[in-house]
Amino acid sequence: MAKPFMNDENFLLENETARGLYAAAKNEPVYDYHCHLSPAQIAENWQMPDLADAWLSGDHYKWRMMRAMGIDEELITGKAAGYEKYLAWARTVENLIGNPLYHWTHLELQRYFDIHEPLTEESAPAIWEKANALLQKPELSVKGIFEKFKIYAVGTTDDPVDSLEHHRAIAEGTAPIGKIETKVIPSFRPDRALELNTADFSFYIEELSKVSGIKIKNTDDVLAALANRLDFFISLGCRSSDHGLEYAPFMVASKSQIEKIFKRALAGKSVSIGEAEAYKTKMLIYLAKLYAERGIVMQLHLSVIRNINTRLFYSVGANTGFDAVNDTMLSGSLASLLNIMEINGKDSGLPKTILYSLNPKDYYPLATIMGGFQSGNIEGKMQLGSAWWFCDNRDGMEEQMRVLANLGMLPAFVGMLTDSRSFLSYPRHEYFRRIMCNLIGGWVENGEYPNDKTRLEKIVRDISFGNAKKYFG
Amino acid sequence: MAKPFMNDENFLLENETARGLYAAAKNEPVYDYHCHLSPAQIAENWQMPDLADAWLSGDHYKWRMMRAMGIDEELITGKAAGYEKYLAWARTVENLIGNPLYHWTHLELQRYFDIHEPLTEESAPAIWEKANALLQKPELSVKGIFEKFKIYAVGTTDDPVDSLEHHRAIAEGTAPIGKIETKVIPSFRPDRALELNTADFSFYIEELSKVSGIKIKNTDDVLAALANRLDFFISLGCRSSDHGLEYAPFMVASKSQIEKIFKRALAGKSVSIGEAEAYKTKMLIYLAKLYAERGIVMQLHLSVIRNINTRLFYSVGANTGFDAVNDTMLSGSLASLLNIMEINGKDSGLPKTILYSLNPKDYYPLATIMGGFQSGNIEGKMQLGSAWWFCDNRDGMEEQMRVLANLGMLPAFVGMLTDSRSFLSYPRHEYFRRIMCNLIGGWVENGEYPNDKTRLEKIVRDISFGNAKKYFG
Amino acid sequence: MAKPFMNDENFLLENETARGLYAAAKNEPVYDYHCHLSPAQIAENWQMPDLADAWLSGDHYKWRMMRAMGIDEELITGKAAGYEKYLAWARTVENLIGNPLYHWTHLELQRYFDIHEPLTEESAPAIWEKANALLQKPELSVKGIFEKFKIYAVGTTDDPVDSLEHHRAIAEGTAPIGKIETKVIPSFRPDRALELNTADFSFYIEELSKVSGIKIKNTDDVLAALANRLDFFISLGCRSSDHGLEYAPFMVASKSQIEKIFKRALAGKSVSIGEAEAYKTKMLIYLAKLYAERGIVMQLHLSVIRNINTRLFYSVGANTGFDAVNDTMLSGSLASLLNIMEINGKDSGLPKTILYSLNPKDYYPLATIMGGFQSGNIEGKMQLGSAWWFCDNRDGMEEQMRVLANLGMLPAFVGMLTDSRSFLSYPRHEYFRRIMCNLIGGWVENGEYPNDKTRLEKIVRDISFGNAKKYFG
Repeated sequence: MAKPFMNDENFLLENETARGLYAAAKNEPVYDYHCHLSPAQIAENWQMPDLADAWLSGDHYKWRMMRAMGIDEELITGKAAGYEKYLAWARTVENLIGNPLYHWTHLELQRYFDIHEPLTEESAPAIWEKANALLQKPELSVKGIFEKFKIYAVGTTDDPVDSLEHHRAIAEGTAPIGKIETKVIPSFRPDRALELNTADFSFYIEELSKVSGIKIKNTDDVLAALANRLDFFISLGCRSSDHGLEYAPFMVASKSQIEKIFKRALAGKSVSIGEAEAYKTKMLIYLAKLYAERGIVMQLHLSVIRNINTRLFYSVGANTGFDAVNDTMLSGSLASLLNIMEINGKDSGLPKTILYSLNPKDYYPLATIMGGFQSGNIEGKMQLGSAWWFCDNRDGMEEQMRVLANLGMLPAFVGMLTDSRSFLSYPRHEYFRRIMCNLIGGWVENGEYPNDKTRLEKIVRDISFGNAKKYFG
Repeated sequence: MAKPFMNDENFLLENETARGLYAAAKNEPVYDYHCHLSPAQIAENWQMPDLADAWLSGDHYKWRMMRAMGIDEELITGKAAGYEKYLAWARTVENLIGNPLYHWTHLELQRYFDIHEPLTEESAPAIWEKANALLQKPELSVKGIFEKFKIYAVGTTDDPVDSLEHHRAIAEGTAPIGKIETKVIPSFRPDRALELNTADFSFYIEELSKVSGIKIKNTDDVLAALANRLDFFISLGCRSSDHGLEYAPFMVASKSQIEKIFKRALAGKSVSIGEAEAYKTKMLIYLAKLYAERGIVMQLHLSVIRNINTRLFYSVGANTGFDAVNDTMLSGSLASLLNIMEINGKDSGLPKTILYSLNPKDYYPLATIMGGFQSGNIEGKMQLGSAWWFCDNRDGMEEQMRVLANLGMLPAFVGMLTDSRSFLSYPRHEYFRRIMCNLIGGWVENGEYPNDKTRLEKIVRDISFGNAKKYFG
Repeated sequence: MAKPFMNDENFLLENETARGLYAAAKNEPVYDYHCHLSPAQIAENWQMPDLADAWLSGDHYKWRMMRAMGIDEELITGKAAGYEKYLAWARTVENLIGNPLYHWTHLELQRYFDIHEPLTEESAPAIWEKANALLQKPELSVKGIFEKFKIYAVGTTDDPVDSLEHHRAIAEGTAPIGKIETKVIPSFRPDRALELNTADFSFYIEELSKVSGIKIKNTDDVLAALANRLDFFISLGCRSSDHGLEYAPFMVASKSQIEKIFKRALAGKSVSIGEAEAYKTKMLIYLAKLYAERGIVMQLHLSVIRNINTRLFYSVGANTGFDAVNDTMLSGSLASLLNIMEINGKDSGLPKTILYSLNPKDYYPLATIMGGFQSGNIEGKMQLGSAWWFCDNRDGMEEQMRVLANLGMLPAFVGMLTDSRSFLSYPRHEYFRRIMCNLIGGWVENGEYPNDKTRLEKIVRDISFGNAKKYFG
């Protein structure tokens, strides 16, 4: 007997045990430790103007699907009216069978707007009206959403040069949003200080010098400036850092070589790929030590290639749907990088670390490499990051959890994050919890783990919330 | 309750929705857009002499399994009598539990010969008699088979120097086969013009010069000659090109360097791997532009290593079962190659493109890279090629469709092709359609997509036939 | 209806056919052709002192999980009392939902000790008492265990310089264990003769010279000494060799170059990675010929990186849980290596070969590469090795068998091995057989293979035992 489409109670819960476990998991708060929400929008208690803006003003997932549908760029990132874009999206959605966007879209309609019919070209106009009306209500302001979805904490992604003025105002209760329960926490993402071959590197270093008050002449100065900013971030609640990496770098060079490389880059000259890698390797090792000393989590996001379509990069810009999965080797270099950090001498130290990859073929290497650095009396010190970005789909999440369970310890997993720019994305935590409970319930029903309700409920609650809360501290 | 062995109606259809969808898909015509059938055999309305010839005269899939079985090469590609080879194959088949050849073999027995018992050493003699008798009937001539299986179009694989005389005769109705409904379409596969390091390269260029009437002194001449032949191919219905690649090449060199490399190869001197790659990169980019201008689909077949067993290559020859899955990295080079094509200046242009890989680990990179080049107002312009060759099995097809659905748009998929040299291989389309309907039906029954019969039937019909018809135009 | 936890009869057998097949497979003897048991302990008919020693004195799988749990190293490999370590392990086990160690642990409790409750912190003390009492009984001596689990043969892993005194004593019935039915067979693992860049290389060559009585000045001498030792191993029953490789080496150098490299290494100087690879390539090719001539199976264990955590390597040592999955490319080099062996001239020869990889992404390349070297009238001459080490879990075993079935011939598979240092690990064969029968039963119930009981039972019996017996001869 086919189940009804996305019926609320049992969606993705294919067995009795799973349903019982989900009942225990669903009311846990959300610790959304890595996202790209705008602190400014949070501070002003932003209210999304309409469904077109909410869904289509910045979501490159959707834009990619619209391009696959053959829709004109004018209706995607162009100047067409919001409603026209929305209709083009509705037409696209119908074709997304088997795609996570299909489920995300309908979970959003259900949970935010109490709309339970499928979005199609036909249903689109009525949904537009109903949803837009609701978007004006206080329940769907940022504050309303945070309360409705029990958002315990939100980890934004911020550049070291950021003033964090909005974080401060939110924390102090002086922002328009007023006093809120949700912790809005900055995360330290110093990518621009690590990429020598970007056009604005020297400009960035100048900015960094200015905000830190440290004159930057060499790499030690960069590190001092970053340490200064990290401490400032920590003073406003920062619990984790984040690095975006095409691949795991590991190139060794002498201190004097690296200084020469740095100075060339600072002078606006280009450096070779190997030279840039040597600088990045050194900086990562030093930063890891700063993180370890301060109890800050290090997130490494690996195996991405970015801006692969130059023609559209020039016309549409960065982060608009032209990134893809990289497939470089990483075992050797990543193990070496972590090893140097672990050796823990004067200039090193391995912090709590989350290893994400955009390529599922990396899960076996990552889960076993991280296993070689578990230690230090911290439960789950090294983490296999949640199925991320393109992997963030039902099959991908299940695969990530299966690999983690087979090669590590699933109950220590810090669980899901949205990685999203949208205030509509919180149902992704529900989606994850359903998939997680279904997986665990299936094992239990199959006789592979005892049907010990207390223990199982603790496991699903911890993965839903408790572990993240403990891990980020 | 176990299902009976390959019972006709419900084989591989594990739920009610799947069975309903398959009823809608099964009667669609077949657009077999990539195969290796012999145009000469089609033209003469060939009749397979017996089951040994039909199955074992050229099928390296079967030969590999017979070798794994420990059968003497004499009974595989050697001089043993056809019946002896057939018996050796029957013995082998019994061991192919879980292998697609097991299903292909029995679907062929059922659909061509109405034989429903399993092929075993014991049943082999009676099956031999019955099938051979039927092979003599007009229903099992090429024309009979095309009609029986509703073959709308067949895309053969042809060298640019080919005269296409059989294609012309078939199209004009002057071949022995007479007027047929099936379109027999040449595909343009210029591999020999792109491989500098083959022993007969200069000989090939001479041939190409002769058939095109263009004197070839440099790479511009090669391109002019290929453009000439491509236009000739198009005049006989060609809709797609095809390139076989060990890995995605991307090596940049100046025009003068490439001319030097080309001239050295033309003089019979060997060139380095990097030099050959630079030439190939340039040629692919130029050819892509020719394809784009003419609306010709570009197929890239990636991640193969060929002729890995030199001893048997010398005794048995090419395409006899000694190729395997390659595992080089491709994200960086393939993205760069497509990017240069996309930039779309004077010398470039990205046509409709199908990316196949022989290595399932490439699906995530391919599906996301192709997503970065969807555009141009064409639905599904970039395609993730059907599970190919070694991947063409139940698990492999399902994996390819799951990845495509998760990362792209499954309903735009151009679907299955046989890639076969055998007129007995059409049930592979049935096999694919069953697996596809089963996958989609499973999602619907699990409440993951609405049970909208009209829409679902359109999806499975389009993937079965309509998309390919539209895509190849 | 959920199944009870690991109920004996039907654990992992999800369908009727699977249950029938397992009944046929379960009583087959065990040919454990690759393990790391201590010949000395076998010879003395060792009796495990207690559960802490049995489980925690050398099992790096368990140590890794305890580290992930945040347990202090003192309680893992340190000086804490056995009982304290055991309690820490019991606490860890509770978190191993979805991990093979959970099932291994409970199968061991059930099959060795008739203990059927889950191991938890609470149940740990009573289990300790009961199990330790039983460990003193003759039924749980090595001899008792070999009889109970029908161990037909055990293939230990031995260095060419080993005296094999225990193997001899066991074979002659003069060891304390007395006459036993189980064959205890040495395997030839000459890794130390192939690794030029280890600190003790010259020392090792001296040892090799001593035991073989061959003065070693050049690589021919090394080979002569190894041939000498191989023949000695064969005189004591050796049927297979084994090589541990980070990746598939293939570097060609002239004989004189290799001699120079070897001499430099012998003089204690370091050689480059490429030079070490050239030496190793040559040695592997020569050794393959020795194996081929003598009918010895060659096992290649690929895609490992070892000792990735230098800090803990220095404090805890090798093989203590700091190895991981490697992800280098292997298709090109492995195919070339096997090809040179296959060419079968004066200096080469390809023996029966088992290709293992620690990285599941290698299964498609391996299974197709090995397919290019099936020949020589040996059924299943080339084997895809059983899911190994980190892959040795339910999902991993199923994936290995599915890939093998799809790309090769599952019924020729030589099946499972423990790869273990522990006398408690024999239930892993039961675990494997259940998973294998469940997979095959599922195909049959789904109508994908005829329900031919005789044939199916032969297949599962052969994979359980018969194939290994025949293959190793």
